[in-house]
Amino acid sequence: MSTQTEFTALPGGICAPRGFAAAGVHCGIRRNQQKPDLALIKAEVRCAGAACYTTNKVYGAPITVDREHLADGYARAILVNSGNANTCAPGGLELARQTCRLAGEALGIPAEDVLPASTGVIGQPMTIEPFAAGIPAAAAALAATPAGSRAAATAIMTTDTHPKEYAVEFLLGGKPCRIGAIAKGSGMIHPNMATMLLFLTTDAAADPAVLQAALSRVVPATFNQISVDGDTSTNDTVMLLASGLAGAAPLAEGTDDYETFVAALTCVAEHMCRELAGDGEGATKLLECRVTGAPDLQTARAVAKSVIHSTLFKAAMFGADANWGRVLCAIGYTPGDFDVSRTSVRLQSDAGEVFVCENAALHPYSEEEAARVLAEREIRILVDLGDGEAAAKAWGCDLTYEYVKINGDYRT
Amino acid sequence: MSTQTEFTALPGGICAPRGFAAAGVHCGIRRNQQKPDLALIKAEVRCAGAACYTTNKVYGAPITVDREHLADGYARAILVNSGNANTCAPGGLELARQTCRLAGEALGIPAEDVLPASTGVIGQPMTIEPFAAGIPAAAAALAATPAGSRAAATAIMTTDTHPKEYAVEFLLGGKPCRIGAIAKGSGMIHPNMATMLLFLTTDAAADPAVLQAALSRVVPATFNQISVDGDTSTNDTVMLLASGLAGAAPLAEGTDDYETFVAALTCVAEHMCRELAGDGEGATKLLECRVTGAPDLQTARAVAKSVIHSTLFKAAMFGADANWGRVLCAIGYTPGDFDVSRTSVRLQSDAGEVFVCENAALHPYSEEEAARVLAEREIRILVDLGDGEAAAKAWGCDLTYEYVKINGDYRT
Repeated sequence: MSTQTEFTALPGGICAPRGFAAAGVHCGIRRNQQKPDLALIKAEVRCAGAACYTTNKVYGAPITVDREHLADGYARAILVNSGNANTCAPGGLELARQTCRLAGEALGIPAEDVLPASTGVIGQPMTIEPFAAGIPAAAAALAATPAGSRAAATAIMTTDTHPKEYAVEFLLGGKPCRIGAIAKGSGMIHPNMATMLLFLTTDAAADPAVLQAALSRVVPATFNQISVDGDTSTNDTVMLLASGLAGAAPLAEGTDDYETFVAALTCVAEHMCRELAGDGEGATKLLECRVTGAPDLQTARAVAKSVIHSTLFKAAMFGADANWGRVLCAIGYTPGDFDVSRTSVRLQSDAGEVFVCENAALHPYSEEEAARVLAEREIRILVDLGDGEAAAKAWGCDLTYEYVKINGDYRT
Repeated sequence: MSTQTEFTALPGGICAPRGFAAAGVHCGIRRNQQKPDLALIKAEVRCAGAACYTTNKVYGAPITVDREHLADGYARAILVNSGNANTCAPGGLELARQTCRLAGEALGIPAEDVLPASTGVIGQPMTIEPFAAGIPAAAAALAATPAGSRAAATAIMTTDTHPKEYAVEFLLGGKPCRIGAIAKGSGMIHPNMATMLLFLTTDAAADPAVLQAALSRVVPATFNQISVDGDTSTNDTVMLLASGLAGAAPLAEGTDDYETFVAALTCVAEHMCRELAGDGEGATKLLECRVTGAPDLQTARAVAKSVIHSTLFKAAMFGADANWGRVLCAIGYTPGDFDVSRTSVRLQSDAGEVFVCENAALHPYSEEEAARVLAEREIRILVDLGDGEAAAKAWGCDLTYEYVKINGDYRT
């Protein structure tokens, strides 16, 4: 077994893998000229592509176009705007197609190799003019450098407080390969099949079906385990493009190299989950729930997500209040038939650990010690159900005044 | 068809029906001596009883005792404390039984005819001393008057801002009968089978099985359609006691009188739903979502509940922002297979109505008009799916700074 499971982070985000350039510009979808609102990612070669989309029955026009353009398994560019979700918007589908044509012309590639994505307000009309000016500008600014990735990561932000990118390196058949990512999150984050917008690049080689299998294996354990506010967005999209330019042999399922690729993809995905949850709208704390001792994987995932999704527990974490009864309550209303009577709960941070609940009842602890542990920015909630071997993680954030402020008046 | 469907409200709450006395006292479970924390309800005669409880796998010790004591279908008293949920608390089950023995002694009835209920913090130890002093005091204070009902309604409050009670009168076989109710709600409100704590009395006559059938028919359409924060409590309980003292014949399913009773029970339940949702923790607005045109009842109920449960929409309502895209988003992530393409949305209040969405796309409206409509305290969200005949309602409240404040530091 030569599967690699530890990875080294690299700078460069989506431009770290060979064959990808990126850019971000302001084109006028947003009124604020300081805020870039259009990102472009271009691959040197036609790439195998894989994607997961929201399961919301109301979904953005770009997702319809993505499904068409990825039907053959290949693509070469991703075009993303912030400021308008192009969802429930009049003429949205035609507009999405038109943006692909403009990008195809600017890049000298077929419109069918462009994958569009949008994020922002739902139901507002959108015009082609900002794209007509912005796409050529973005094409001219493309750079296969860390600055290119950073510009794209910045242009896709909505209420995010900072751009999110990551990259790791690993070996496939002795050849160094890379996976890079950028993402935007913040609000309307309760993904089902994918998170808000997350774009992955790799220079590993794979057929589209193998790439999709790898992505579909990683998404349920990672992006579907985040929740900021329980609202599954209409535009959730995860995309992965593989250029193959690292020179490694194409991946095949069931091999050590494939497992290494999945492990690297999981590593990048978990990192981005922490980034997305920790920068949830108004968040002051990142919450990571680690469930062990569950009877099966489904229960482990559901319990972890239920805890970090509990409004009451999220508010308690904002107040640094060790109100573990709310953890038990959230475990108890998780769907499924499992035993709660042997549940233990520990609250952990870099400042220490408090053992607050044993066998579903109070385990005596010091409130002072708990307050010290909960004062940290990152809190781990360790739940052991004592009822099996399955484990899972989920990521969320606290519920704050700022969340209410941001969402009480998002459009103005 | 002589089913009565319109009812007149009466004062007196749970003491409006013949045969019920109630009291509320401070006994020391809470430190604040100004806050009553123990309620007692006593019937003149042994009553047929019905109840629905939380589906949370973690549940309060009183619920175990209620199931035992209602196994024969009859009861004569309800004992409720606030300040401690008696859930995940060491020795909680024995303590709940002991409180029933004390109440039985004080009232001169068997302990098995006493139904206990608790609300408050989870996982904190509780002692018998406050009950030992408080139960005789409550028994001595019992009054079959509006003041008695009000005292009990006040003693069960936690973060509620006001006591909640209601009563209506109707005719069964020509005899005037009444149903009365008291409730507490506010936080951890996302009932599944029942809401936080709600006690109903009636002087209609019915066998326990008929009474349970009526209650079980009303609960899914009313109490299970409320959400304040998505957290299903460990102590949710709805109880109904029927004294039969109005002198009407026992109810039989399938008769006009039975339908009248169900209609009156629904009327009381809907009123209490509005009270509970409108007084949700930190709420400044009551939200009522009315769904029509759904393909089936299950979809109608799920869509209505999804809308009033959306964190993002709740925050938008706090900001009086007509962000209807969040309504569409919440409809879209409702589980089930139904068509969203003919969905229309109207926002309505006593100040008027704005038509914001037609066929799942923007319907042009005036933002000024919308702001005027949304400035009211009670907002109705009218959703028509254009896909069938089924209809349902759900009740919720806005998400405010105050909710975060209350729950960021509930225990101190």
